[in-house]
Parts: sequence; structure tokens; C-alpha cells
Amino acid sequence: MATGEIKELPKSWAMLGGDGPESYTQNSSYQKGVVDASMEMVDDGIMEKLDLKSLGFESTNDTFRIADFGCSVGPNTFFAVENIMKAVEHKHHAQFNNSPFSGFQVFFNDVTTNDFNTLFKALHSNEKYFSAGLPGTFFGRLLPRSTLHFAHSSYCLHWLSKVPKEVLDSESPAWNKGSIQCDGLKKEVTKAYSAQFQSDMSTFLEARAQEIVGGGLMVIIMGGLPYGVLMSQAGIGMYYDLLGSCLIDMAELGVISEEKLDSFNLPLYYSSSKEIEEIIKANGNFSIERMDSLSHNIWKTSRETKIKVSVTGGRAVFQGLLEDHFGSEVAEKTFENFETKLDENFSIIDGAAHEHIDHFILLKRNVN
Amino acid sequence: MATGEIKELPKSWAMLGGDGPESYTQNSSYQKGVVDASMEMVDDGIMEKLDLKSLGFESTNDTFRIADFGCSVGPNTFFAVENIMKAVEHKHHAQFNNSPFSGFQVFFNDVTTNDFNTLFKALHSNEKYFSAGLPGTFFGRLLPRSTLHFAHSSYCLHWLSKVPKEVLDSESPAWNKGSIQCDGLKKEVTKAYSAQFQSDMSTFLEARAQEIVGGGLMVIIMGGLPYGVLMSQAGIGMYYDLLGSCLIDMAELGVISEEKLDSFNLPLYYSSSKEIEEIIKANGNFSIERMDSLSHNIWKTSRETKIKVSVTGGRAVFQGLLEDHFGSEVAEKTFENFETKLDENFSIIDGAAHEHIDHFILLKRNVN
Repeated sequence: MATGEIKELPKSWAMLGGDGPESYTQNSSYQKGVVDASMEMVDDGIMEKLDLKSLGFESTNDTFRIADFGCSVGPNTFFAVENIMKAVEHKHHAQFNNSPFSGFQVFFNDVTTNDFNTLFKALHSNEKYFSAGLPGTFFGRLLPRSTLHFAHSSYCLHWLSKVPKEVLDSESPAWNKGSIQCDGLKKEVTKAYSAQFQSDMSTFLEARAQEIVGGGLMVIIMGGLPYGVLMSQAGIGMYYDLLGSCLIDMAELGVISEEKLDSFNLPLYYSSSKEIEEIIKANGNFSIERMDSLSHNIWKTSRETKIKVSVTGGRAVFQGLLEDHFGSEVAEKTFENFETKLDENFSIIDGAAHEHIDHFILLKRNVN
Repeated sequence: MATGEIKELPKSWAMLGGDGPESYTQNSSYQKGVVDASMEMVDDGIMEKLDLKSLGFESTNDTFRIADFGCSVGPNTFFAVENIMKAVEHKHHAQFNNSPFSGFQVFFNDVTTNDFNTLFKALHSNEKYFSAGLPGTFFGRLLPRSTLHFAHSSYCLHWLSKVPKEVLDSESPAWNKGSIQCDGLKKEVTKAYSAQFQSDMSTFLEARAQEIVGGGLMVIIMGGLPYGVLMSQAGIGMYYDLLGSCLIDMAELGVISEEKLDSFNLPLYYSSSKEIEEIIKANGNFSIERMDSLSHNIWKTSRETKIKVSVTGGRAVFQGLLEDHFGSEVAEKTFENFETKLDENFSIIDGAAHEHIDHFILLKRNVN
């Protein structure tokens, strides 16, 4: 195990399992929008940057191996990998014309506590490729050396491996009292979050660099911020602040203690493309083939739907985290309060002057 | 997909999930005994029959890939694969002395409805090898061509992909009225079960033949019968007959209909080594390196413990099957009745003139 690798993440990092009305499966339309928006960029990237000849596919007739890091329980991961496969087949046809393609093996990765049972149930009817589940944190090695041709990670890497401890420490200048996120308003807090992001992202890149063959590609999609925009100025930051205000309400009502409240922060960091670029360059194993923002809009719907999606989507992602820290009763009350408050404040969030962005990053593994 | 491949098995083929008091995890001591008893044979087989040089390990420094087909939820699968890894490392050391070994990737396979979540939870703390879950029936292809160095399957292949339809058909001479198993007393029933076994085993061998590299090994452990012994004469057959009698009681009490009873048979077939040998030879892709019976005895314990283990072990394996066919209430009543009857009749089963055997088969994939 290389330095910096992480053995396991907290249980609560997993999305809400099963396929019921509150599950991630049924409440990940925003994340699906991200995948949809990225498809053309993925297609272009494969067509222009993937050279199956240099990967040896002409002579070896090897299986093309894909991994989705942070796949959750579906169905978004299926859309993503099926799109990748289509594009690779297309490219294979373009490069080798009539020679038959030997097929795909797809590894679905997420934390050990992810609901793989639900994922596998949705998967089993598909016979177009060999598939395997890869349990464990992607902040560590998961596959043998140089065995992967294409890595994909959608909407995970703005999750940190942990909340930086300084922001929960009342003795530290980075103490983030009064906020549950890196809102950008306090320099020391931002610095602590940014350092954690840099460490995690470097660990991720180092692990993938071992696994991906020279010439192999990696697509990373993650939440971020336009350069110079603070989290508290963006709609998504206001959304987290509102969730935080619901927890503050719980403390004021005496339902939770102030200490309990102060010891909670979201393990999220929305980075700028400049920060990401610096980390990738410092790592040195990948060339940046494309760095872009996704444009997508899932908001062309009624106000009621927007609010509903915002609440259920938030639950599917954060319920585990809140339950783990505050217990299920407080989590439940918080989400109920959140729904009411979101209804009251939705125009502010919806009309925020700034929006976060979703980074699209296409990397190519250097040939050693 | 090759002819004969099966896409998916019924949900109820999975062992009882979770890790609670009734789970397979906690009630698979017999199956653990089988694994324990096989360890030395596996070690010897690897030492004598595995040639890492001819597999190219001298030059390629490839990862050694192992798959356990029908792994269930643990912990037996971990004992088995860890033993295999130890023996392979030992052999590597013997063949290459000081050169470093590149490591292992282990694929854990079982049906899609297997409780992989429980399996992965037990797995995650291990860092000595790369691991992946492989959901889907082993009566079909699961891995890319020629990517496996060692296949293992313990106590699964006496399970059929389905109950042969003739034995449930009142119009057929093979109708198995009055019995829930292939008890060996009716030639036509045995023939139907045997034909299904032959078909399933051939399908399994064909799929593995595609996946295993030339020179790679496969260990198969499965329940069977000594040549000439009928199932109804062996302790295990009496055990199933007793379970069957509990279902007959349910019909006589009017809890289930006679049609419901008649439409149920266990998808199990205990074969002779002669039958297995013929199937392997007909398949033609493997040489038989060793064919043996395991000797093991988990019965050196008190009568009470024996009965308890027999009931809970039976539940962990067959509860899904019974619930699926008769509903959970009937299944529950049946197992309660079974416990009482087992207590009354235990000396007959324990003192049976014959015992089933557990086959140990070591195969080597031919080099094409």
C-alpha cells in the first residue's frame, strides 16, 4: 500500500441503498443530468484521444477493461459505462475496420458499505459485457498494475476522505463554527478544506496511475466552482447553508447540543479548475487532454418539482451522514424542516447570482 | 453466449444472507469442514501440478488470478482462497526462489441474489490481494477468455440449474410423487436428475474452459455418492427424506395442497465419481489430475449439537427454496416440525449404513 492510501471510509459515505422511494437509485436525477451532459465529451475524447493501436489491441485481442469509481447503486453508472463502450467500439471499428472486437470487462467500484446487492440486481440482465463489483475506497489501490484501459468517476471526487480536523477544533484558527460547509468566507477554513482536497485528489491520481495502462484514458466529473466564486455565493452553497440552518434550529430547540452541532461539517469541497490542474500537474502521471465545464439544466420544471427533487435528492446523498452523526430521529426532523425552509427560501437559491460548475476532465496516462 | 449457457438462476438458489443467527455465515460449519479437509489436497495439487513457468510468470510478472465459483457470503470462501494463495506463493518461491511475486486478484462469484453486501463487509479489512465480486450464475461465462489461473468451487455443483421438469410431471414415467429428492429408488427419476446434472456440469466446464488459461488449475468439491449406493440409503438422503416428510405432513394437515407438494423437488443431485469422470472426459478441455473423496468428520460432538447444526444448517441452505415455493409461514412451520422429527429420528440418520461422499477433483486446463 502506497503512502497516503486510505483503507476504508466511514459507512455513511455510501448513498442511500435499495430501490425504494427514498433511495439514491430513485433520486439521482441531478447526477444523471451530469452523466447525460458529459456523454458527447466522452465520445469525442475516445474518438480523438484513445489510440487502440498503441494500447496493443491490434495484436493482443485483449479485453477492454473499464472501471467506474464511485458508481453508487445505479442506474447512472450503467448509462455512463454503456456510453463509453459504444464509443470504444466505434473507435475500434474506425481503427481496425472489420476485425472483431474482443469485448469488455467493467468494474463497478464504490465503498464497501455501498448497496452492491441493489446494483447487481439491476445489472444481471445485461449480457453484453463481463462485470464485476469492486468494493473499497478509491483512495487506495483496487486493481492490479496496468490492467485498466479506461477509468471513469462521476460526481464523487468533490467528496473528501474526511472532514479536515482543524475545522472542528475550537482551538484552531480554522474552526468553522456556525457553518456546516466550506462556505469560502473564512480563509483558514478554505485552506484546511483545500489541503484535504489536494491530499485526497493526489492519492486518487496516484492509485489510478498504477492501474491504468500507458495511453489509457480517465474521465473525471465533479462539482466545482468558477474561479473567484465563493461557495456561499452559489446556489448549491446556499442549499447547504439552508440545510445547516435546519441543524442550527435543532440546537436552538435543544434537540441536539451545541457541541454536537459544532462537530459536524460536510466532507465536500468544490474546487476551481485551476486547483485541479495544479494537482494533476504535480502528480505528473497524466496529461490533461481536456478540461471543461458541463452545461446542463435539470431545472426546466415546476417550482414544486424542483423543491421535491432538491429534498429527496439531498436525502439520498446526505441521510447516511446525518443519521451517523445525529441519529435517525434528528436526521428525519431536519429533513422535514429542510423541506419547509426550502419552500420558503427557494426563490433565493434558485435565483442565486452564481452557480457552481461541474468539471469535466479528460486525462491520458503517460507511457512510462 | 455459448449454447447451453444459463442466464440467471432463481432467487431462492442463494444461501440465507446477512450475518444473523440464522444466516449461512453463521451456519455453514459442515461446508467449512469440507474446505478444511480439502486444504492439504489443494496444497499438494498446487505444489505438484501448477507450473508457474509454463504459465509465463517468469517473464510477465502477471497478477495471479483466482476465482471462487459459488462463494456464498463467507467466511468459508476466505479460508479457501487464502489457502490457495499461500500454496501458490510457496510454489512461486520454490520455482523462482528470490524473485518477487506480483500478487493476486480474487474474484468472488455467486448468483446475483447472493448477499454480496455481507460478503464485502467481511472482506474489506483484507489488503493482501485485490478482490472483486462476480455476480451471476456460474452456468454461464463470467470472465474474459484465458484470464484465470486458478478456479475453485466448493459445495455448489451438486446443485442443479433447475429441477428436471419430468419429475414434476404427473404424465411422465419420471414423476417423482411422494419424494422431494432423487432418492435413487425409481430408475426414471434418477435418469432425469442425472441428465440434468450432466447438462449443467458440461455447461460449467465449457464456461470455465474459456476462462482458464492453458495449464491453469481447477478444484471442484461437491457432494456425491459412493458407486452403487442409493441416496435413500445414505444419511444425507434420509435427512432430505425427513424434510420431505415434514412437507407431506403439511399437505395432510391441509396447510398446503397436494399439487403444491407434488410440484416441489430439491434441485440437488449427488453423483458418483464415475459419472463425473465421464462428463469431464466428454468435455475434453481438462485433464483429471486427481479424483478423490474428502474424509472429514464434524460429528464428534453431542447429540444435541448435531441436531441443532442439522436444523440451522438446513435452514441456511434451503429456507429460500422453501419460502419461494410454499411461502414463509409454511417454511417456518416445516422447519419447526423438522426439528422435532429430527430429534425423534436422529439415531436412524446418524447410524445410516452408508454415508454420502464429498468429491475432490483437481483438473488442469489443456494447453490448446
